[in-house]
Amino acid sequence: MSELPEAYHKLLAMGEELTLLVDTSALLGWDQETKMPSKGVAYRAKQMAYLSGKEHDLFVRAEVGEWISECESEMSPADEMWPNVRDWRFDYDRATTLPTALVTEFQEISALGKATWAEAREKADFGIFAPHLEKLVELSKEKAESFGYEKCSYDALLENFERGARAGDLAEVFTKLRPELVEIGKEITDRGTRVSDDILQGDYPIDKQEAFNQEVAEKVGFNFEAGRIDTAVHPFCSGLGPRDTRLTTRYDEKEFTSSLFGVLHEAGHGMYDQGLPGELHGLPIGRAVSLGIHESQSRLWENHVGRSREFWQYWLPRAAQYFPHLASISLDDMVFAVNRSSPSYIRVEADEVTYDLHIMLRFELERAIFDDQLAVKDIPGEWNERVREMFGLEVPDDARGCLQDIHWSMGMFGYFPTYSLGNLNASQLIAAAKKENPQIDGQIAEGDCSTILNWMREKVHSAGSRWLPGELIERATGETTDSAAHLKHLRDRYL
Amino acid sequence: MSELPEAYHKLLAMGEELTLLVDTSALLGWDQETKMPSKGVAYRAKQMAYLSGKEHDLFVRAEVGEWISECESEMSPADEMWPNVRDWRFDYDRATTLPTALVTEFQEISALGKATWAEAREKADFGIFAPHLEKLVELSKEKAESFGYEKCSYDALLENFERGARAGDLAEVFTKLRPELVEIGKEITDRGTRVSDDILQGDYPIDKQEAFNQEVAEKVGFNFEAGRIDTAVHPFCSGLGPRDTRLTTRYDEKEFTSSLFGVLHEAGHGMYDQGLPGELHGLPIGRAVSLGIHESQSRLWENHVGRSREFWQYWLPRAAQYFPHLASISLDDMVFAVNRSSPSYIRVEADEVTYDLHIMLRFELERAIFDDQLAVKDIPGEWNERVREMFGLEVPDDARGCLQDIHWSMGMFGYFPTYSLGNLNASQLIAAAKKENPQIDGQIAEGDCSTILNWMREKVHSAGSRWLPGELIERATGETTDSAAHLKHLRDRYL
Repeated sequence: MSELPEAYHKLLAMGEELTLLVDTSALLGWDQETKMPSKGVAYRAKQMAYLSGKEHDLFVRAEVGEWISECESEMSPADEMWPNVRDWRFDYDRATTLPTALVTEFQEISALGKATWAEAREKADFGIFAPHLEKLVELSKEKAESFGYEKCSYDALLENFERGARAGDLAEVFTKLRPELVEIGKEITDRGTRVSDDILQGDYPIDKQEAFNQEVAEKVGFNFEAGRIDTAVHPFCSGLGPRDTRLTTRYDEKEFTSSLFGVLHEAGHGMYDQGLPGELHGLPIGRAVSLGIHESQSRLWENHVGRSREFWQYWLPRAAQYFPHLASISLDDMVFAVNRSSPSYIRVEADEVTYDLHIMLRFELERAIFDDQLAVKDIPGEWNERVREMFGLEVPDDARGCLQDIHWSMGMFGYFPTYSLGNLNASQLIAAAKKENPQIDGQIAEGDCSTILNWMREKVHSAGSRWLPGELIERATGETTDSAAHLKHLRDRYL
Repeated sequence: MSELPEAYHKLLAMGEELTLLVDTSALLGWDQETKMPSKGVAYRAKQMAYLSGKEHDLFVRAEVGEWISECESEMSPADEMWPNVRDWRFDYDRATTLPTALVTEFQEISALGKATWAEAREKADFGIFAPHLEKLVELSKEKAESFGYEKCSYDALLENFERGARAGDLAEVFTKLRPELVEIGKEITDRGTRVSDDILQGDYPIDKQEAFNQEVAEKVGFNFEAGRIDTAVHPFCSGLGPRDTRLTTRYDEKEFTSSLFGVLHEAGHGMYDQGLPGELHGLPIGRAVSLGIHESQSRLWENHVGRSREFWQYWLPRAAQYFPHLASISLDDMVFAVNRSSPSYIRVEADEVTYDLHIMLRFELERAIFDDQLAVKDIPGEWNERVREMFGLEVPDDARGCLQDIHWSMGMFGYFPTYSLGNLNASQLIAAAKKENPQIDGQIAEGDCSTILNWMREKVHSAGSRWLPGELIERATGETTDSAAHLKHLRDRYL
């Protein structure tokens, strides 16, 4: 490391300080969602705004920009530590490029937008939300112009969430995926159901669910010496430091799988976090690389492992020790029950087969909006038409249509595609892991997930942000991002 | 407020920022003791050191000193907001007076001291700890010289924990208290025991204890919309903001009163915190005024309320609904069982009658050390001799003698007396409250503690730090700090 320029060491110290602040903010956030008494909320908002101001002030200083320029001229992309410079540059430009007036206006409008969206959804009236959405779209177009792009302005927004992602590439993948998903969905519907919808309904005391979830999470590889599970209204996973990763889930006393799959999903995020190179914590390279890669890990443990026949071969008898109700359910019925698929209006309730159709709908609308092909006022009509095409369903009202998600109300355009990238990446990664290790399925049936976890540790987690997401997937699987592995997985499982 | 000088407004802004940092540190600390996974400890220490450095840097700036001087010349002690200036001055002088070399050396030695003390206690060998203690005493004498004092150097250390406290005044109060406590203790021992030591031993599931403690804490007046209870190895109460106060306790599955009295004690601290003037949070005047006043509130709810006959008149039948074992215990036996008194070596296990004797022992030794009347090497002999005098007990080894407390290992000289001040203040405050409100005992027997709480809110909590502790007690009770009320309370309860 001795030949690294002095400016690099200054950035290193800045990055460590910044990360101390960011991790402290993360604790304030985690505590607010899990432990904080209700009356603490106003003061907590002040604390978080204060720290986030400190983070911003620390990073956007002119000298930080100078240090980055010095590193760019004194280091080369072949250097081991170059990815830090690459990401400092990206983050710095994103943090400093926008005119202050635009940042302020965007913050104000999106703060109002959330409340207006909630009211519009409550009243199922898109007209209430439309003026705010128009303004947010307009400001986001201005942001995209400031950030810059090669082909289309939407690309500049996508990169807020997924480095290197391009709308054109995504559209190409989605164009192949879409008709196949519609077809698989149709075949499932035609085939009919195997067991009653409510065979899993029963009595599942929360303390038993907690104990069972803890056993499962530990067995799949989540490290409780460096993490924990709590309850939250909206489950999430939060990394609070290099050895401190916290999952949350929520409980339904009549159905144990919702908390369990919540834990498996968040434990997937959590094991990624626990597998990041801790010695590089505080550097860009030590961070998770993108939402699409993060989501690949959560989907992998939730769907590929957690809904597999092999998983339940091992866990159904154990679950029955916690929940006697399950003793009368056969393995076949259990596997079927946790792998139902049917079309619906609501994204967050969608299953593995239909989920990506919901994402494509949003992606296509966002892309059309930012290509000036779709006006905000025309969103509801367009939305409902596409739901009809994809699912053969009539959207009953906008609350169950284009008002169902919070993302747009906060100006988060370009976020949705990362969910589907997660699904595609998960299928490609697990396929590659199984190709190299054909024993994986047999191990899962014995409760042993160590081969999968070790493979992900080596190929994904330990890389941190060394490579951008596209390159990471290619290095790990030998292929670029593609829908083939995912479609094969769905056909194998559902048909 | 318009006539307040500009410098005051600058201090106000500085104070609010400082408090945001201090409260964030408090969350980091609370989380570490209650929730943090074990491997998070090293990084957490870095976060806390970072924030505490930021707090220090913010406060010790030269301009802060100038603002305080400006306020001192432009405001007068008659101004409503003067106590803020008074406390900023005190804190600023304490934070800036010490030579940097002394601060650094003290930090290093006390960091080592804690580990050395733990080893010495483990091996019951004072010789291991003595060299560190000598050094800590020497450095503390230097600190006292820097802080300055009128009569004796120990006074300068006392004021780190109790503003306005003087060793001479304390000695005067303790001199009267000591023989009386010895006498009361002797009478109790001579009288013999009423019921077997283990009548309360039974089966008390932790979740039932949690539910019972929650019911009691809520009923006495702790506000769970602005607070919560968790488990910690060493119980404490922590204020994390103006509407966020967190208690902790620990559980023994064979005896429910240890967690209950822990909760009552911490809820006493917590209700004080919840009663502070929230609109002044961030100003010195909005803070709790001292450890001795804080401890008065915890002792009041733990001992005066929680160990009273009236309290158990209401709560024993309710406790029996949680713990069937208690149904066979009479009110008389219950009250006797929670008010046992017998001499012991260990301060933290001592009862209401003998506790202050342990404190006086420490106070007298500390005073002698700082008056150069006692050498560190002679502490064990002196300690054991005094325990013999007070309790008629032979200290078996230094681990159960002068090595039992952690305080000295961290250089905390002058802390112990605040525990006894808490006991004396509690007795004086409750006596004054009952004199004005003779219905209090009857209300407690009906589970209603609102009159006590409202009285404390008005006379103690809402005052924040407007008056120094001595003046607060005099305003609330009409008397200076004195042992008469406490001795009357002990005689009424035990004899």
